[in-house]
Amino acid sequence: MRSPSPVLAVTSGEPAGIGPELTLLLALGEHMPGRVVAVGDPALLTERAALLGLEVDLLELTPGEPVPEARPGILPVWPVALRTPSRPGELAVANAGYVLETLDLAIAACLDGNADGIVTAPLHKGVILDAGHAGFRGHTEYLRDACGIDEVVMMLATDSALHAGQAGWQGSSALRVALVTTHLPLREVADAITGPGLERILRILHADLKRWFGVDAPRIAVCGLNPHAGEGGHLGREEIEVIEPCLERLRGEGLALDGPLPADTLFTPRHLAGVDAVLAMYHDQGLPVLKYAGFGRAANVTLGLPIVRTSVDHGTALDLAGRGLADAGSLRVAVALAAKMASRGAAAPR
Amino acid sequence: MRSPSPVLAVTSGEPAGIGPELTLLLALGEHMPGRVVAVGDPALLTERAALLGLEVDLLELTPGEPVPEARPGILPVWPVALRTPSRPGELAVANAGYVLETLDLAIAACLDGNADGIVTAPLHKGVILDAGHAGFRGHTEYLRDACGIDEVVMMLATDSALHAGQAGWQGSSALRVALVTTHLPLREVADAITGPGLERILRILHADLKRWFGVDAPRIAVCGLNPHAGEGGHLGREEIEVIEPCLERLRGEGLALDGPLPADTLFTPRHLAGVDAVLAMYHDQGLPVLKYAGFGRAANVTLGLPIVRTSVDHGTALDLAGRGLADAGSLRVAVALAAKMASRGAAAPR
Repeated sequence: MRSPSPVLAVTSGEPAGIGPELTLLLALGEHMPGRVVAVGDPALLTERAALLGLEVDLLELTPGEPVPEARPGILPVWPVALRTPSRPGELAVANAGYVLETLDLAIAACLDGNADGIVTAPLHKGVILDAGHAGFRGHTEYLRDACGIDEVVMMLATDSALHAGQAGWQGSSALRVALVTTHLPLREVADAITGPGLERILRILHADLKRWFGVDAPRIAVCGLNPHAGEGGHLGREEIEVIEPCLERLRGEGLALDGPLPADTLFTPRHLAGVDAVLAMYHDQGLPVLKYAGFGRAANVTLGLPIVRTSVDHGTALDLAGRGLADAGSLRVAVALAAKMASRGAAAPR
Repeated sequence: MRSPSPVLAVTSGEPAGIGPELTLLLALGEHMPGRVVAVGDPALLTERAALLGLEVDLLELTPGEPVPEARPGILPVWPVALRTPSRPGELAVANAGYVLETLDLAIAACLDGNADGIVTAPLHKGVILDAGHAGFRGHTEYLRDACGIDEVVMMLATDSALHAGQAGWQGSSALRVALVTTHLPLREVADAITGPGLERILRILHADLKRWFGVDAPRIAVCGLNPHAGEGGHLGREEIEVIEPCLERLRGEGLALDGPLPADTLFTPRHLAGVDAVLAMYHDQGLPVLKYAGFGRAANVTLGLPIVRTSVDHGTALDLAGRGLADAGSLRVAVALAAKMASRGAAAPR
């Protein structure tokens, strides 16, 4: 007997952005591999569907009730009530609490075993800060804290179908780029790269490639920090003093690690062949090439959590909201990836 | 009557590397648009041709003698004598002077009107430093000083045929990435970005896109320094304090400048459409995506010189030399680009 597909809680995100309409689009078009349950306000979703002429019927459920296998035109929803009506493009501070409540509900559902993963549509950090949630840094950190974890790793992945003409995520040809540092001013990056931090991140990346991605013996290619990976110390010494000793230590434990390699050498077919993930030292070293390769078909994954979490790779796009112009490509990739991860993680020994 | 094609002096670079064999390969295979003249030791080239079974006859000339239009299997050469015999893969300090002499001869030929551009095969910086030429920083800086120029701009360009199925460099779809800073340790980058420096570089890039690339009204997309281009000052203030004021000033003069944009947004089809060049703030922000896009079919261009200069985008590959494994793709792109630039620059008003 085929096992039921994973239940994925899709938080519909900032109500004034494109999140609600992207979530509705999951019930239309190409079949999604998981059982999607939207988390959001049913009235909001109904209103946006009408505005955009999307023929989607909502099926209101509560976490714990059985979620049926996906059918076209039907969107199961776990309801959370807006605090104030939302219009496309108009942020309302009052709804910050609503956005956080959708996350809390989805996290609880995962931890309680009522969902197999979370997929997040974009939220707007500014409006949550304006609402008085000082210290809110984003989805990733919120999930980390809610799960009681010290460190997570941000990774972006493209849809492998782009690279090898394959459907879905079976191939090893998907480009995956994880980051050592994420949202830091460039001048703070060099000092933020430490041996112990790099080691923790490599361990998380290695373990989660095995657990969630079905890679038995992950091979990771690691970028240097400096141009030409420091060119033997002529262009910076962090490779020699921090990165190489860390890689050497972990190789001693059997991890398969390439590098540190010059970033502009690493992202070429010869060096990417057989590599399961690239570890870039900072945001703009790794993500421009990932986004270029992905063409709007990339998703963000949070590694190191006890649960599956994926996300779109874009923002709320307030200027596009409610106009029928939003592209659900990244959300579809995020859902497909979460479904695959959840199926694998459930099967893998913990 | 069709005007004769440009004469391009191809310096064959480090004799122990792949430069000599790449240069020989220009006389074979696909027709090159310029009249290539190799600069190097005829005995060395003859020896490597024999070693690799390349059927190339050398035609020894001196600068000033007419260079015939290209014919398959014939390679015109301006002779420079090796100081000591060279074996593939074995660096010899004694030949550093030979490498520099090939450059001097090519530069003089351009300045004297006997060549229309220089294309450089790779040299080995270490062996030139070891030979006592302290302060030698590379081809680019050597050419800058030899031409008596204060500032040059490094730009890499892919073969547009990769992107649009076009032959040659006619299309606007080639990806071109220029850099504000080049070979600096990452921790020094932020302080190296100054308003006056950025302004000089943008002026050179704008002027040379017009002069050498035939772009009447260049549109340049400029990256931010920080991730998300600083996200309104939350992730660094260089965009607000340095980059934006500079762009604003130059827009006031009529330059078409996009940005500062987040690097991982800029390198997507929507933002690249209609853009003639991208200006990245540092090496690993711009070059990984260029190399990924270029697949070994990219070339390096030095802007700001009074002469045309292009180069391969790779090193001497000592481990591949003399084995028939070297790929002349980047050198062919560099020659084709130099030919196009020289034809345009000659036609353009100075």
